[in-house]
This record gives sequence, structure tokens and C-alpha cells, in this order.
Amino acid sequence: MGRTPGSPPNRESILAAARQQFIERGYDGATIRSIAAAAGVDPALVHHYFGTKDQLLLAALQQLAVVEESLPRLLAGGADGLGERVLRATFEAYETSYQPMLAALVGLVRSAITHDDAAGLLRDGLAGGGLVRLIEALDLPQPRLRAALIGSELFGLAMARYVVHLEPIASADIDLLVAWYAPTLQRYLTQPLPGDDT
Amino acid sequence: MGRTPGSPPNRESILAAARQQFIERGYDGATIRSIAAAAGVDPALVHHYFGTKDQLLLAALQQLAVVEESLPRLLAGGADGLGERVLRATFEAYETSYQPMLAALVGLVRSAITHDDAAGLLRDGLAGGGLVRLIEALDLPQPRLRAALIGSELFGLAMARYVVHLEPIASADIDLLVAWYAPTLQRYLTQPLPGDDT
Repeated sequence: MGRTPGSPPNRESILAAARQQFIERGYDGATIRSIAAAAGVDPALVHHYFGTKDQLLLAALQQLAVVEESLPRLLAGGADGLGERVLRATFEAYETSYQPMLAALVGLVRSAITHDDAAGLLRDGLAGGGLVRLIEALDLPQPRLRAALIGSELFGLAMARYVVHLEPIASADIDLLVAWYAPTLQRYLTQPLPGDDT
Repeated sequence: MGRTPGSPPNRESILAAARQQFIERGYDGATIRSIAAAAGVDPALVHHYFGTKDQLLLAALQQLAVVEESLPRLLAGGADGLGERVLRATFEAYETSYQPMLAALVGLVRSAITHDDAAGLLRDGLAGGGLVRLIEALDLPQPRLRAALIGSELFGLAMARYVVHLEPIASADIDLLVAWYAPTLQRYLTQPLPGDDT
């Protein structure tokens, strides 16, 4: 995981190391120090770029494998069925590799509800760069609005499934969840919305 | 607001008094004592029926004017345009009469994320009786699933607009919000969903 000699340490390599550490060790096990070591940089640089461990977690999740790493795969099929592909990629990520981070995320959400700075982090995470880039790549209007609508949709779904345990959403299998929610995502992603022409 | 002499004090009259008190005095100003006085009952009876003030607030919101009191009006137009009518009724309630309770609700949501008992309250509130009855009145299949999908949608929207302040959702006017979200609600309310036939 150390950086290649000669390449400058950058935000991306720290984020990749952080994601790896959070996944392997969980939120409590991963430390700024262990992440810095994995990225081959000084812990002070991690602090400089990202601030606290909470902020780093959110940044790691925001540059999210869900959309970020799978952008080419998501785009390969074009606009058709995109809502379903985004949902499946999200569930695959959260219910397999990101599973160890779920508790930390719930904690972050809790902070976000009371603290303005955490709300800012969550805001960025909800409608972050990956989704906006996905929508831009499709040349669709109002990418920020579309990303926000999807962010609110996925947030409500995540709260119902992982936090409040609202049935039948909490224990439905992924195929059913996708069938229920994909048409909504598809509309927010690709269909005409009021304000598109202005 | 006192009860009519001769009529038994019941849950409904306490809830009506609670809603009135929360709206007039806000969450901090309203007390179990003041609510009991308005309902013409002993405070011990309020505790007996509802437990804490938090639980009473959630019960008051759950038996929610949004759907409960406007059920006849919402149903009058039939299934057509129902998603839009439910959304408008919700925004009217939350951005006018319920405004003083929003902060208390956000606090409840915060508790719900960490405490299982509060999560139960929120679960009931999200997909509570009013929505289920509305869907049943339309003779649609899977009322509990439909209410849960709508609950998750409205929860994500409420978080984006009132808590996390995610733009452009946070400052959009209500007509735009309705145009963005109503088709989603309409689908969850009235359109075929997987599992309808089983």
C-alpha cells in the first residue's frame, strides 16, 4: 500500500489507504496513524488534508466506490437501466465491503443532525462528486438537483433499512429493494424534471 | 379545550390537546401538566396512556393531521393526483402549523438513531396508521409496504430540506418540491409493485 517512490503523496492515495483501513480494521481500529502508514505519508499530512478521522471517513465514503470506482461500468450500459445499476452497486458496496463502516456512518449521521459542521460533511456525502459526474457524463441537465434528489432518496432508504429498521424495507432481499426503488432513481437520473429548460 | 362533562377522557382527546399545546407553546413550553389541563384530565392519565413528553409528541404527530385529519379531502379526488395532494398536505402542515415542533422532531430523530426505543417510535411515525388507512381506503395491495416506501421517501426529503440543508432541495419553493417528488409518491401509493399478486 505504500506510495511508489518518486510519486507525490496526494489526497487520492490517502483516501485509498483510508478506505482500505476502514474496511479491514473497522472505524475504531483504523487510526490517522495507521492510515498515514499505509499511504506512506506523515500523519500530519493526513490531518492537513482531511482534519479529523470522522472527516476522513466521510471523504473516503464520498469519493465513493459506489459511484466513483464503478463509474465506467455504470456508464457502459448508457442511460437505460441506470437507476437499477446504481442501486445494485450501492447495495453491493454497503452490504459487503463497507459493512464494517456502517456503525461509524450512523454515528456521523447522528452528529450531522445536531452539528452544523457535520451537516456540511453529510451534505457533501449525500450529493457528492461521483453522482454529479455520473449525471454530467450523460449530458443531462441540472446534475446538482438530480444528485440531491438521489441523495435524499438513498438517505431515506438507508435510514429505513439500517437505522430505524422499518419493515418490510429492513429485511427485504436486494432484488426486491431494487425493484421497489430503481424506477424512482431512474426518473431522478435521466427523465425530464421541472426546471430543465431554464 | 376541557372535555365535555359526561364524556369519558380518552386517548384522542389527550392527543388533540397535546397537538394544540405543542403548536401554541412549542415543544419546550408544552408540558404533560399543561396538556392534561387542556384535555381536562389528570396528568397521571397522560403518563399512563403515553409515557414521556417525547412519546406524546410522536403520538401526536403520528395521528397526523397531514394524513389523518385530511383523509376525506385526500380521498375525494380518488387515486388520480393523490401523490401531489399528500405532498401538499404534508408541506402545509409542516411549514405552517407544525413549524414550532420541527426542532423537537429533529431531536427525536437524533435519539432514534441511537436508542432502540426511540427508533420504534420513529418507525411507527414514519409508516403510521394514517398512511396505511389511506392506502387501504383505495383498496390497493400491500398497504404496509406502500406506507413504508412513502415514509422512507418523506424522511429523506425532510432530512435534506430541514436538517442537512441540501441544496437545491433546502430552499426550493413548495411547487417545485411537489413537481420533483409527487410522481415518486404517486407510484408508491397507487401503481403496481412487485409482490402485489402474492
